[in-house]
Order: sequence, then C-alpha cells, then structure tokens
Amino acid sequence: MPLCNFDQYPSFALVNACVVTCDGEGDSPRDRLGIIAPGVVLVQGEKVGCVGKVSDFSFDGSIQTIDVQGRLVTPGLVDPHTHLVFAGSRMDEFQAKMRGVDYRKIGQEGGGIMRTVRATRGSDEIALLKRLESRLARMLRRGVTLVEVKSGYGLNIGEEMRLLRLGKSVSEKVLDGNEVGVKQLPRTTTTLLGAHAIPQEYAGNREEYVNLVLKMVDLVSGHENGMRLAEACDVYIESHAFSVGEAKRILESAKKRGLLVRAHVGQFEDIGGAEMVAEMGGISCDHLEHVSDKALGAMAAAGTRAVLLPGAWRTLRQQAPDAQRMQRMGVEVAVGTDANPGTSPCFDLLVALGLAVRDAGLDPEAALLAITREAAEACGAQQAGRIRAGWRADLAIWDEVDPLVFGYALGGLEPRAVIIAGKWVLEHDGDWSLIFQ
Amino acid sequence: MPLCNFDQYPSFALVNACVVTCDGEGDSPRDRLGIIAPGVVLVQGEKVGCVGKVSDFSFDGSIQTIDVQGRLVTPGLVDPHTHLVFAGSRMDEFQAKMRGVDYRKIGQEGGGIMRTVRATRGSDEIALLKRLESRLARMLRRGVTLVEVKSGYGLNIGEEMRLLRLGKSVSEKVLDGNEVGVKQLPRTTTTLLGAHAIPQEYAGNREEYVNLVLKMVDLVSGHENGMRLAEACDVYIESHAFSVGEAKRILESAKKRGLLVRAHVGQFEDIGGAEMVAEMGGISCDHLEHVSDKALGAMAAAGTRAVLLPGAWRTLRQQAPDAQRMQRMGVEVAVGTDANPGTSPCFDLLVALGLAVRDAGLDPEAALLAITREAAEACGAQQAGRIRAGWRADLAIWDEVDPLVFGYALGGLEPRAVIIAGKWVLEHDGDWSLIFQ
Repeated sequence: MPLCNFDQYPSFALVNACVVTCDGEGDSPRDRLGIIAPGVVLVQGEKVGCVGKVSDFSFDGSIQTIDVQGRLVTPGLVDPHTHLVFAGSRMDEFQAKMRGVDYRKIGQEGGGIMRTVRATRGSDEIALLKRLESRLARMLRRGVTLVEVKSGYGLNIGEEMRLLRLGKSVSEKVLDGNEVGVKQLPRTTTTLLGAHAIPQEYAGNREEYVNLVLKMVDLVSGHENGMRLAEACDVYIESHAFSVGEAKRILESAKKRGLLVRAHVGQFEDIGGAEMVAEMGGISCDHLEHVSDKALGAMAAAGTRAVLLPGAWRTLRQQAPDAQRMQRMGVEVAVGTDANPGTSPCFDLLVALGLAVRDAGLDPEAALLAITREAAEACGAQQAGRIRAGWRADLAIWDEVDPLVFGYALGGLEPRAVIIAGKWVLEHDGDWSLIFQ
Repeated sequence: MPLCNFDQYPSFALVNACVVTCDGEGDSPRDRLGIIAPGVVLVQGEKVGCVGKVSDFSFDGSIQTIDVQGRLVTPGLVDPHTHLVFAGSRMDEFQAKMRGVDYRKIGQEGGGIMRTVRATRGSDEIALLKRLESRLARMLRRGVTLVEVKSGYGLNIGEEMRLLRLGKSVSEKVLDGNEVGVKQLPRTTTTLLGAHAIPQEYAGNREEYVNLVLKMVDLVSGHENGMRLAEACDVYIESHAFSVGEAKRILESAKKRGLLVRAHVGQFEDIGGAEMVAEMGGISCDHLEHVSDKALGAMAAAGTRAVLLPGAWRTLRQQAPDAQRMQRMGVEVAVGTDANPGTSPCFDLLVALGLAVRDAGLDPEAALLAITREAAEACGAQQAGRIRAGWRADLAIWDEVDPLVFGYALGGLEPRAVIIAGKWVLEHDGDWSLIFQ
C-alpha cells in the first residue's frame, strides 16, 4: 500500500527523517553530508520547497505529511559514467578474459569495443530503446535518478548522433517518429564519446578519424543545427586508443563550443592526459588506475573529479586505484558503474560503491558523496546529487538509519521508495522494516 | 500486466524457453547445466509436471501456455550459507576494519559476533521476524527461492531455539502465538550454529559451553521434544573459535541424531577440520581461504561441497580461495552470500557469484551450478536447485538467453519473474526486454 498518492497530494512533506542533504559545508566528509535529523523535506510540485529541522516546522493539515520514522532520505543517486546504449553481450570474451586472455588482445582480434559497435549499428532504434529503458529501470530500483549516458558504439556521424538521441530521448522525447512511453525512469545526461576507439575503416588514417570526431563535436554542440545532443565530450586516452595530443584537439574544440570536457585516463597505463584535462577545466578524469602525483595535483587545483570504476577493475582483475591518495591530494572522488558489455557488466551503483570502499580504500563515511554530490559534479548534471530548496525533488528513502550503510553494504541494498521530480515512482510493499537495525 | 494469473490457471507451461535444468549428467559443467532449448516446463499445481523439448509437446488449449521467447528459465536460486536472523548493524566496526583494524582484534574488544549476540538477544520476536522477512524479500527479488538460515547469535539454549524457530517460521508457521502473514518469501532451511563463538560467560570454561551446545543438538534434532528445529549442524572451526576436537564432539553427536553436518573451515588459518568433516560425510566446508590439498582430497572423496563466500573475503580484504584448484581436485563448488552484519553485509547472491568468478577463478560456465544444484547439496535442501519432474516448481525467468550471464554480471542482474511452488510471486512490469542482447 503506497504511503503517498501523488495525484491526490501534489505537495507533501517527509517528516522525522534523517535527511542526508549531501549539501553541507566544511572539510570533513561528515560535514559535507549535511545531515539534518530529525528533519523535514517539503516537496512542492516538482521541486524541493524547503529542508530543515522538524522543530522549525509546523504543519496545519493543508499538506500531506509522511512520517518516515527516522529513515534516511537522500538525494536520488547519480551514476556519472555509463555506456548504456549498446546491443549484444560479450560473455564469451569475458570467459576468455577469466581464462587469462588480455583485454587488449581481444580487441586486436576484432572483439572488444568494435564487436559491440557492429552489434549496435545493426540494431534498430526500438530495440535499442527497449534495452536502454530496461537497464535504466534496474538502476531506478537501486535508487538512481540521474544517469550519464555516453555514445561510443557508433563511431561514425550518423550512428553516434543516433545513440545520443536515444540517450536523450528517455528524458526528453526527441526520438523521431517514435512515441516514448510514460514510464518513470531516471533522467539522463548525454556525453559524446566518438573518440572511444579508432574504427577499423580508419585504421590506416587516424587523423582522418579525429577530424570526423571534430565534426561530431560540431554537430552535438548544436553548432550546425541548433539542437544540443550532448552536454559533454569524452575521449578514451590510452596507448591502444587516442593519444594525449589527439584528445587535446578534440576536447579543445568541444570546450570552445560550450561542451563540458572529460576523459578516460590511465586505465591500463599512465600516458598522461589528466593534467591536460585539468588545465582545460575538465569536469572529470575517469578510471585512474595509473596516475601521477603531478596529475592529481593539477586535478585538485582545477576541481576536476576522479571517477572510480570498480566494475572495470574487478572484471579486468586489475589493481584498484588508491582513493585515499587522491583524497589526501585534494581530489574529490566519485564512483560510477561504467555499465558496458565488455569490461563492466554492472548495473548496480551501490555494488560499485561497496567495491570502491573495499578495493580502493574510499572512506565509508564519504562513500555516499561519491554517488550523489561528487557524481553530479563529475558528469555536469544540474540540480542533482543534493537536496536543496528550489532544486528538482529527486529523492530516495531507505530502510536504514545510518549513512555509513552505503559503503558497508555489498549487494542487496535498495531504496524503500524513490521520488523523481516530486513524483512517487517506486515503493516496495510491506512494513517499513529496517534491514540492519 | 502479469503474464499468468495463477488463480485462474493452476497449471501452465512455459514454452520456447532456454531451460537450464541444472540437472544434466556428465563431466563438463556444460553437460551438468542440462540445457533444453527450445524447451518447455510444465507446471502442475505446486510441482513440475514435466520438462522437455518443444518438439515433444503438443498443447490442446486445456492449459495456459506462456511463450517466454527464448529466455532462460532456471531453478530458483539457492543461498546455502546465511546468518540472516540478527539485530543491529556493525557499520562502525566496518569503518574501523577499512581503516586497518584486524577483525579478530575487534572481537577481542567486545565487538564482532558478541556484539550482534547482545543486540539479537535484546530484540523481540516480531522485530526479528520483520527484519528476516525484509531480507528474504530482497533475496527473492534477485531470484532466490531457498535460503539456508543459521542460528548463532543466541549462544544459549533459549535464544538459539528462538532464532531457529524464527528461521523456520517463515516457511512453516511454527512461531508460537504470532500469525505469520501470507507473504511470498523464499523457503528456508535451518542450521544450528550454537558453536559460533564462546560467549563471554563461558570464557573460562570452554568445555561447559561445548556441553551446552551438545544439549542444543539434542533439542533441535527433536531428541527431546519430537520437533525438529534444524536440518543441519554447523561449527565455526578457527583458532579464535572452536578447535577441531571440540567441533568433532559436536558434529558426531549431531550426526548420530540425524542432523546433516557442516563447518566453517579455514577462514583465517588452516587449523584442520575439513578432513574431519569430510570423513564424517559432511555436506559442506565453508570459507576455505586456507585449506590443504589433503583436505580437498578428502572432501572430493566424500562429496563434501566447498562453499565460497566472496562477501566475506572482500569485506575482510583477504586473498580469495582458488576455485580452480578445488575443481581440479574434484571438489564441487557452491557460492553463498554469508549474509551477516559483521563480515559480509551482502544480500545479493548474484553479486557474490560475480565476485567468485572474478576473485576465485570460478569458471563462468559453471557459475550457475554453484548457486543452484551445488548450493542445494551444500545445505542439504530437498527438491531445490534443479528443474526436475515431480520436484517443487521453484523457478526463475530471466531477460537473458545465455547462462554465462550469471558469472558475467556484477550487480543489477535480476529475474523477470519468479515462481515459488508453482505460484507466480514476482514479475516486473513492462516489455520483456533483454538486457544483454
């Protein structure tokens, strides 16, 4: 039996909550969690009307109050790094990897990213959209209300634009000719990753492909047609992908055209790139299994986030990056699923977080920030990752009372209820029983 | 919109399925998966009526047929090792562990298992039952239809009996004085773990506590009152817990009284125990981070399963056991969540499986067997872990077409629908979209 019928009560207040705003000030993670308890979140239409202590409110019966009995109320979670629009699995490659074959060798032999490119190019839009929606629905059931979606399995102009339109269509109905249903799904923010791999047809002419990516940048930034298909531009910097110089050309052009910039850096080796992204004011460097102190210093100075991707380092059986080192050097850390069919078949952001704590040493106390506030900063999402008056009311309610739970749990943590833009979109039946108390 | 209304159709057939019976014969994992495709599972009342190829069936319209369009139909999953009846979290201890404090030191200082014992003893039955049901409901949402539940947070006669009654009550309504709801939850099988730790009040007199555990064995086996509260007896063998000699006394008594026997062995060091359990015909040795070849040989000879518990080795940041070594030596491998508030806050068996593949080298092809057939053997569950005519119809239907997916996914894998004892108990809305195809 749902606690709140939104149609009946367009405004409501969650009361007696442990509100973790993720909007606090201060040097310590605890301060930045911004906990208000016992607290109130007043939702008015699509927005948060106000947030505060129970003692500062009085309710006269004109709006619905919902007693959440001490439970955690957090911002809806933010997944800052996914490759969610794809067709086909790479399970057989996974099996080969588990039997000791190197990921890059699989790619050289026609597998890897290029295999997913072929499957994705061959898949029609309705099928791709259904898959995307199914993946987003799973993320929603784990409390995620905003997902960054990259292109990168198209690798030519038409296909990359198609993937970005699909990524955008979930939130914004820009898919031509197809009515998108009214399913409640997380919002998406899209990122052009035309520079994900050099497609086979350009193997002998890298520069020509980089020029093609520059053309994609023009198109997605709305430089050519007035419609912006992506908020950000990403490049995969690695010796088997794009060089720092190539990335710089692409990202400088993107920045000039008003796109946010970010990059995959140091997944297999440190060939540089993080400093360049930081100096350009980039929003994030992602992976960072291999990164120098100098690069981390530049990221700290620029406010460039580090995005940790545990699904990838576990699936590739790599040494995890050192989150404590990053935080000591002043770099803020976010965590993403990296959801993709090759290196990270992971659709549960909370599992990724539990692994980031265990493998990379991310402090459990700071863990929630890495999938809310810092994740939103890392993907340039607006009005996401914090509970703040006037911002969109994307909230999750948990059968938990201590925010330490987010780093502590390793699978099976899920919200009791999710609210998107003020609307109650998911709620589990039954008593509101606590899991860990 | 549910595909099948059970009340209307007490019998139904799943057709055009990739039926993974987990009931095949042969040496290779693939053979033992027993795949029938395109296949049919005919459900009659609470049981599987028959299983076979589509070409062997003809339907005359007298029963409902449900076209699952090539999807995987598997046995409901079996979690063979949980400590699911507990109160209180140990999140602060987790934070200390992540900052480098040794788990055994936490126990010596009054934390660890004894802290959960205090919280559990202080919690009333209704609160404990609600927590247990909430945890089981999460497991069901991940496809689990049978869960082994251990006692072990009571550590005196009255409390251990209370925890076992609670564990049983979910399936069998033996909880005195409280009507248990009609919620659809996984079945449980219960295990006495009175020998989980030496409680403080017996610190100076271990033998007296072992004698008390022998008394518990009498009680749960129905030796005293005719009612059997557990199917199995478990002992935690470790230098800071029970010695091999103490375990032997307890398990021999349990075996004599008709209980199945198993043990926690080699989590921190190899002090022996696996050979003793194997020689007694034990159903499983669990953990096995440290185990000798000789012990594995004895387990193989006796058919004693190894139960891997990835939630614990990741949370304790230990080296994983070597599943390939076990399988080479002829030991069948199962995987469990080890769900508990101290060393494994994990309620997602599929996440545990994904980690067992990545960390312990469990072959992806064999992975599903470890959470179905082998898991059922490891906890002594009847009519579970296989799809077989005449057995209870506990089934899961997945938006997937290749059984490799179970080891491949690392978070976010969940069934499209779950059937317990022939009854459709969970189904996600929306199109039946595939996630990885």
